[in-house]
Amino acid sequence: MRVVRVAEVRDVAGRALAQAGVPADHAAIQIDLLLEAELRGVPSHGLLRLDRVIQRIANGVADPHAKGHHIWRSDAFLSVDGQMGLGPVVANAALAAIQERAQETGIALAAITNSNHIGMLGWYAENVASEGQNIIALSTSEALVHPWGGRKALIGTNPIAIGVPTETEPFVMDTATSIVSMGEIHDHAHRGVSIPGNWALDVDGNPTTDPNEAKKGALASFGGAKGYALGLAFELLVTSLARAAIGTDVRGTLDATEICNKGDVFIVIDGPQPKLAAYLDIIRTAEPAEGFDRVLVPGDRARECRSQRLAEGVPVADEVWERLQILANSPVSATHKIA
Amino acid sequence: MRVVRVAEVRDVAGRALAQAGVPADHAAIQIDLLLEAELRGVPSHGLLRLDRVIQRIANGVADPHAKGHHIWRSDAFLSVDGQMGLGPVVANAALAAIQERAQETGIALAAITNSNHIGMLGWYAENVASEGQNIIALSTSEALVHPWGGRKALIGTNPIAIGVPTETEPFVMDTATSIVSMGEIHDHAHRGVSIPGNWALDVDGNPTTDPNEAKKGALASFGGAKGYALGLAFELLVTSLARAAIGTDVRGTLDATEICNKGDVFIVIDGPQPKLAAYLDIIRTAEPAEGFDRVLVPGDRARECRSQRLAEGVPVADEVWERLQILANSPVSATHKIA
Repeated sequence: MRVVRVAEVRDVAGRALAQAGVPADHAAIQIDLLLEAELRGVPSHGLLRLDRVIQRIANGVADPHAKGHHIWRSDAFLSVDGQMGLGPVVANAALAAIQERAQETGIALAAITNSNHIGMLGWYAENVASEGQNIIALSTSEALVHPWGGRKALIGTNPIAIGVPTETEPFVMDTATSIVSMGEIHDHAHRGVSIPGNWALDVDGNPTTDPNEAKKGALASFGGAKGYALGLAFELLVTSLARAAIGTDVRGTLDATEICNKGDVFIVIDGPQPKLAAYLDIIRTAEPAEGFDRVLVPGDRARECRSQRLAEGVPVADEVWERLQILANSPVSATHKIA
Repeated sequence: MRVVRVAEVRDVAGRALAQAGVPADHAAIQIDLLLEAELRGVPSHGLLRLDRVIQRIANGVADPHAKGHHIWRSDAFLSVDGQMGLGPVVANAALAAIQERAQETGIALAAITNSNHIGMLGWYAENVASEGQNIIALSTSEALVHPWGGRKALIGTNPIAIGVPTETEPFVMDTATSIVSMGEIHDHAHRGVSIPGNWALDVDGNPTTDPNEAKKGALASFGGAKGYALGLAFELLVTSLARAAIGTDVRGTLDATEICNKGDVFIVIDGPQPKLAAYLDIIRTAEPAEGFDRVLVPGDRARECRSQRLAEGVPVADEVWERLQILANSPVSATHKIA
């Protein structure tokens, strides 16, 4: 593990994407998304992902030039064919369109398909809420989660982010509807540490504390039957609105070779001026329960982490950094093309 | 407990609301909401609530004639002053307006304040999704839930319902963001049964298994920190959009005397034709895990319960039924007016 300054991350990642033929403006968006995950302490959605982005470009399942094709189905409903573009590039173009439209209509929605992985939803929520608009962001994924009472993975990890402007910094929450990410399982396997018994089922659908068995199995929803209901609702809503693939048909966010067919939905609401900061401070200053140092508002810890890492740099695993160096210094075709 | 046929429930409840001066069309809506909760096996949101509705009318904090005043803040954003109307009457009028608007704009939102308790959100979701539109329904409540890591109730139970049309019956999920309802705590207290240790804190903010202590304390969010983040996000979003009261300032859904100042938000999306039924059947026919008879899709059990009770009648607690008889047979002022 090494600590790398933000400017150096941008430089190396930028050169890596340039080698892959990504235009500079699109590369800046992709890097900003991944870097923001590192700054907020979510490395599973950070620089680790750049290798796969580049592999997907090399393999022809990600088009670094595409911004997505926009069709307004009605005044406030934007359908986006992502044209296999980079997830955050397509998402940002869609968001810009519905943010502007929501200023007229009050609320507007973008439903995106045929776009690549859009990464940490909180990044979009933070950006939109910082500009004074409310946002609900949803995305689907490969089926990794079993239904409540089931044995096999049939539902995506289906994250949600919600951003609400306040008089001060925006409120942003961002969570998968799985109890943990599959990355967390891989991390436990990597470290040889067992997992809690309620996190996952093995390949036969029985509870396991062995992360290597869980990798072949299925994750639980967070919050039991209630989280299952929410995650399934997001799967249905996003799939229906974006005309995306569903359940075990979803491909392309975990592999380097298949066209990505999941869906993303953004709803932007141009709301009234908020008065929420005093309430959030009541929560922050509430007496903590036994075993807690303080009461946090979602996003507080990420924001603190961000401030520190902006000043001091981000910790990057050695193998991730070495891979980035190779990507930055060699043409893509030589290192990535899968025959 | 007795079993009462649906027609008889309608008759008795209708006479009770007529005694309270509720116009017949508004009474039919209020009764339909409460009856639907009974049919779906959610008595905490059923006939039990009619007494308080009538008390609130008698006390002048519910106006049985009001439908709400509509102001279109923009093409697809409807602000509703509920004029202290009955919750489902105001909500249905708002929904009708945004359902029609969403046919033009693709998506439309209603933000409601100054309206009474809107009851089981799943009723609205079922109605809208049955008519071929997608819906996200949110509502806030009195602060009954403690933040993750906190000791005191600062957040509402803040339910969400999502309805998605399918080729067959709609998908509907409906859940509070608290781990259980306060009604469930009261029910345990009534039966003298202890509660699980993760449901609630006592008045000092320490975990308790005594439902009588929990009644004075705070409920947990469902799903720990993730459910807390979601419930808080709904509190902020609804409060901001509806310009409603927040946190411990909320009144009027649990008492008979205070003006109700929570908020409700409906988002209706006029989406593409769905193809979801085959996927839902894959879930329903999946092999169940150890300890489960079958895998359910949210709403399945409620729908089965509904079919049976439509045919056979709904079970009603004796004291609830006797109270309804009194309400149906005596003028409101004599029985309810609180000086």
